Amino acid sequence: MPTYRVDLSYDGTGFHGYAKNRDVRTVQAEIEKALATVFGHPVDTVCAGRTDAGVHARHQVVSFSSQISMDTNRIHRSLTAMLGPEIVALDAMVVPDDFSARFSATMRAYRYRVLTTEKPDPLRRFTTWHQPYQLDLDAMNRAAGHLVGEHDFASFCRQAPDRTSVRTVLSASWLRLDDVCELRVSARAFCQQMVRAVTGLGVAVGRGRLNAAAVPEIIAARDRHACPQIAPPLGLVLWEVGFH
Amino acid sequence: MPTYRVDLSYDGTGFHGYAKNRDVRTVQAEIEKALATVFGHPVDTVCAGRTDAGVHARHQVVSFSSQISMDTNRIHRSLTAMLGPEIVALDAMVVPDDFSARFSATMRAYRYRVLTTEKPDPLRRFTTWHQPYQLDLDAMNRAAGHLVGEHDFASFCRQAPDRTSVRTVLSASWLRLDDVCELRVSARAFCQQMVRAVTGLGVAVGRGRLNAAAVPEIIAARDRHACPQIAPPLGLVLWEVGFH
Repeated sequence: MPTYRVDLSYDGTGFHGYAKNRDVRTVQAEIEKALATVFGHPVDTVCAGRTDAGVHARHQVVSFSSQISMDTNRIHRSLTAMLGPEIVALDAMVVPDDFSARFSATMRAYRYRVLTTEKPDPLRRFTTWHQPYQLDLDAMNRAAGHLVGEHDFASFCRQAPDRTSVRTVLSASWLRLDDVCELRVSARAFCQQMVRAVTGLGVAVGRGRLNAAAVPEIIAARDRHACPQIAPPLGLVLWEVGFH
Repeated sequence: MPTYRVDLSYDGTGFHGYAKNRDVRTVQAEIEKALATVFGHPVDTVCAGRTDAGVHARHQVVSFSSQISMDTNRIHRSLTAMLGPEIVALDAMVVPDDFSARFSATMRAYRYRVLTTEKPDPLRRFTTWHQPYQLDLDAMNRAAGHLVGEHDFASFCRQAPDRTSVRTVLSASWLRLDDVCELRVSARAFCQQMVRAVTGLGVAVGRGRLNAAAVPEIIAARDRHACPQIAPPLGLVLWEVGFH
């Protein structure tokens, strides 16, 4: 029973998130519908990062099993033909039986783009968060530095109270690219809305509404209300997934 | 009878071009509908660059006259409220009576983005032309150099045969920005589809399908069939307009 891995890129604008959800259009439902056509039976997938509604992926990874041995070029070609321009199949391959896009992934990297121009940009309205302010990148990087390492990120997570919110952030930094401030953050895994909360925190610090030195207290509070704001989904991109 | 200038930015994806056209959704029709509401009478506008369907504008300029003296902040605020996120009113001002966005403009600058990644990018499908090739930027710049100056651009124009296709290109060059090759071209004025034809020529040269040294002959032919290809509209942005 071979296990397959499919790598994807998608524009999240037109989807109600990655994960299947009754009656709404989701990336997972589109993928599984296409895979069911290719394999001739229902296919259940798992993914490396369950992106929220409006969040994009430059590189998402999905895995599934089938009793059918299928040429991976054929899988790739069929998905390309069926999925259309919103979801691009980057690659398809056979992987070891114990591979899981969810559990084998040891690193997820996200990027979040904040547009700092005075006026909104119609061409980037689905891919950036417009914050027409001068942002202090040094302060934002001091704030981001406090997040690196293993912490209980309960202040940054939308999560059931009985599940752990301890996560290991591997790197977090802000770059200025022309008129955009970009957060680049990687972790072994993130909890829900964590990157958006980290972005909200960064922008609050960048605007001078919060001191970077207050970040350790915000982490220690383990209270979602301690985080100043949650950035909207549209500036967020699942950038890369790493496997051991 | 005051003359007004309004500066705009728009995402051309959802419009059948800038210019009014019966029964289809155009940028000009949206603007004039909003201005008619603001001024309480029909408003006829002229613009600096009549962009084709799917072409975007970072900075378009529009002018019109009205017998009504209206506070320009009020015009700007009303347009912002009425136009929504696809069209952004950047500014509104009163200008001298002899000002025309069309006839007073002495420089139009366009940019065209070609995406050279192996796979298409769903997030940039409306703003770049995907050409998954290694492009020779030096050769493209040699080709572009031949276009600078006053020439009869009939080989690059979609135009009624009785109208002149003589134009003055002020600058034309290609830059590589990460995974994008970007044409930056300015002229006193362009004829229809000229930037897209110049882009098509550049990409043909960049792929090695045409020698840059052949460009003077292509210009001299004054025949639209001499131009190897016309790039699609979606990678094109009206970037800037200059006035004397």
